[in-house]
Amino acid sequence: MIVQTQYVTFERELRLHSGATLGPITLAYETYGTLNQDRSNAILICHAWSGDAHVAGYHTPNDPKPGWWDDAVGPGKAFDTDKYFIVCSNTIGGCSGSTGPASIDPRTGKPYGLSFPIVTIPDMVEAQRWLMDHLGLSSWLTVTGGSMGGMQALQWAVSYPERTRSAMVLAATAALSPQTIALNEVARQAIYADPNWNKGDYYGRTPPNAGLAVARMIGHITFLSDASMREKFGRRLKNEKFGYSFETEFEVESYLRYRGNAFTKRFDANAFLYLSKAMDYFDLAYGLPSLAGAFRHITDTRFLVVSYTSDWLYPSWQSKELVRALLQNGLDATYVEIDSNYGHDAFLLEVDRLAEITRDFLKRVETTDWRITVSI
Amino acid sequence: MIVQTQYVTFERELRLHSGATLGPITLAYETYGTLNQDRSNAILICHAWSGDAHVAGYHTPNDPKPGWWDDAVGPGKAFDTDKYFIVCSNTIGGCSGSTGPASIDPRTGKPYGLSFPIVTIPDMVEAQRWLMDHLGLSSWLTVTGGSMGGMQALQWAVSYPERTRSAMVLAATAALSPQTIALNEVARQAIYADPNWNKGDYYGRTPPNAGLAVARMIGHITFLSDASMREKFGRRLKNEKFGYSFETEFEVESYLRYRGNAFTKRFDANAFLYLSKAMDYFDLAYGLPSLAGAFRHITDTRFLVVSYTSDWLYPSWQSKELVRALLQNGLDATYVEIDSNYGHDAFLLEVDRLAEITRDFLKRVETTDWRITVSI
Repeated sequence: MIVQTQYVTFERELRLHSGATLGPITLAYETYGTLNQDRSNAILICHAWSGDAHVAGYHTPNDPKPGWWDDAVGPGKAFDTDKYFIVCSNTIGGCSGSTGPASIDPRTGKPYGLSFPIVTIPDMVEAQRWLMDHLGLSSWLTVTGGSMGGMQALQWAVSYPERTRSAMVLAATAALSPQTIALNEVARQAIYADPNWNKGDYYGRTPPNAGLAVARMIGHITFLSDASMREKFGRRLKNEKFGYSFETEFEVESYLRYRGNAFTKRFDANAFLYLSKAMDYFDLAYGLPSLAGAFRHITDTRFLVVSYTSDWLYPSWQSKELVRALLQNGLDATYVEIDSNYGHDAFLLEVDRLAEITRDFLKRVETTDWRITVSI
Repeated sequence: MIVQTQYVTFERELRLHSGATLGPITLAYETYGTLNQDRSNAILICHAWSGDAHVAGYHTPNDPKPGWWDDAVGPGKAFDTDKYFIVCSNTIGGCSGSTGPASIDPRTGKPYGLSFPIVTIPDMVEAQRWLMDHLGLSSWLTVTGGSMGGMQALQWAVSYPERTRSAMVLAATAALSPQTIALNEVARQAIYADPNWNKGDYYGRTPPNAGLAVARMIGHITFLSDASMREKFGRRLKNEKFGYSFETEFEVESYLRYRGNAFTKRFDANAFLYLSKAMDYFDLAYGLPSLAGAFRHITDTRFLVVSYTSDWLYPSWQSKELVRALLQNGLDATYVEIDSNYGHDAFLLEVDRLAEITRDFLKRVETTDWRITVSI
């Protein structure tokens, strides 16, 4: 499956959640499969922190690596491109084609850096809604994603219930726990501590790679679980025996150093910071007496909430709280807890189990009439 | 209770586990209570990563803060200074009075920095054994400690079973899991990434405080639990509402920044690195077919192993594996899992429960004859 990244630029300003404005806005996106006659088979896949619009397939015949969720998106897969028209767009605030802190600020002709405004999950969804209109789509059959992608799926249902027939929320939460905020903050501090960061003003110079690598290493620990690290690495040494030095001794150290370093070649440190803040700010219950209140305007959207037993970043108790709040509103919400050792990464890896659940869920959504019409 | 730190310098060289030598060696230590006639009431308390010899009491009448485990050590407390003669010494490789990387290397007249040799938990115990001889003690009634202190208690039983009547191992392990090694490695990388670290050569210049603060913040996250962070901070904001900036938004961020920064005022970055490596290397099963083999020479030492339900740094499954290995050797081992939300910090905080268990355990140890005599 060969796919091209497409770009659309909106020559207007987006009023952000913070009160600031951002514009013009470019969005990078990819589409897979064919839109049907009545435009009822469109699915939006939202990516996580370090993801991009390239969810599946290859960019060229010789491309060494497929998109980030190729196991789940394609002909006959969980998100079947023979049946559905699938859209994935890079979020604003990121660094993979959509407008973010590394983009040129048209007012100054220089990269935004820290003058880029804070963007939130609702802001990302709003930009995606512009793309939806641009594509001539009045509703999504489902909006889905894991981690930060799951937060966007939830936000779609809250912001545009009349355009969201269903939401599949994987390994996500309605609000980050203090432990997860703390982990994000330490990752940020690692970047701030790198003198090359220079308060975000490093474009055209040496970027803060050392700080970004440390930040990403923290991430990699949280994506795995105690059990999966024992399976994957144990206490295996890089060499035959202890070297008694500060060189890499254990395979797990080697893995982290490699992953941290590799990340700096493909990701912008400021974008990393902005996306971490977007997640911290995400809180559907913010300003409300309880989470249930967040869903009070929703009537017909169906929900599938999936958590993974060993995910300690967005643990199952959070998904259960979310489902409880949906049920308190009388909404149609299904909860599945998948038994997995893979930790938070399970949403990317446990695709066979996900495929079964997705097929059943989408069949139910498809066979239920959707009478809401939206003029775009 | 007013106490003074004492110092002893051994003008000889210690052959380290790595094969390197270290000497002369100074140890900082404190003692509490009175040694009885037959010298049978001595207890060694071993400190954790950031601890020191000052386990309890005050250094001056106006001292604003007592020692690090004052809740557990003192008249009538878990470790009752009216009954026992208690010794606590700063480990080698640290920075609180004992020989470590910030000490002057007598061969060069300059601080060791990274020319300081890697020290291990057995090396720390060996230096403590010199102190034991210096104090004229032939056996410890018990050796105890939490975290890295618990590793030393275990090592005492393995290295010197004939001088260790019992070991109380709290919130510790016989070998770090890959997840904990990974967390240590990221903390080290945060220090390495600070240009002020300068490969350990920063004494007399600006120390790598930014890197050390990040490293310590990672530590603080691992000392707490998801549940205790929810209780302690929740998603409470520093100000009334979101400021939508990179300033501190959440109380938990504020806590981490404060703690990270405060730590740099009292701890040496190189010592932090060396102690993290000592823990990584600790593995009683290293080179053996199984952990049980580590205890094969022990006959009379009794063990109390305590873990805490929400401790995810040294989780209960590790303590259970340890107890199984002790029992496989026919040893007298008691295991207690304390239900606590405090995470790894529970060993410092759940002192009431610990006091009960300690009293019962020590009574059993005291009333059992100890016929082994050691000439020192």
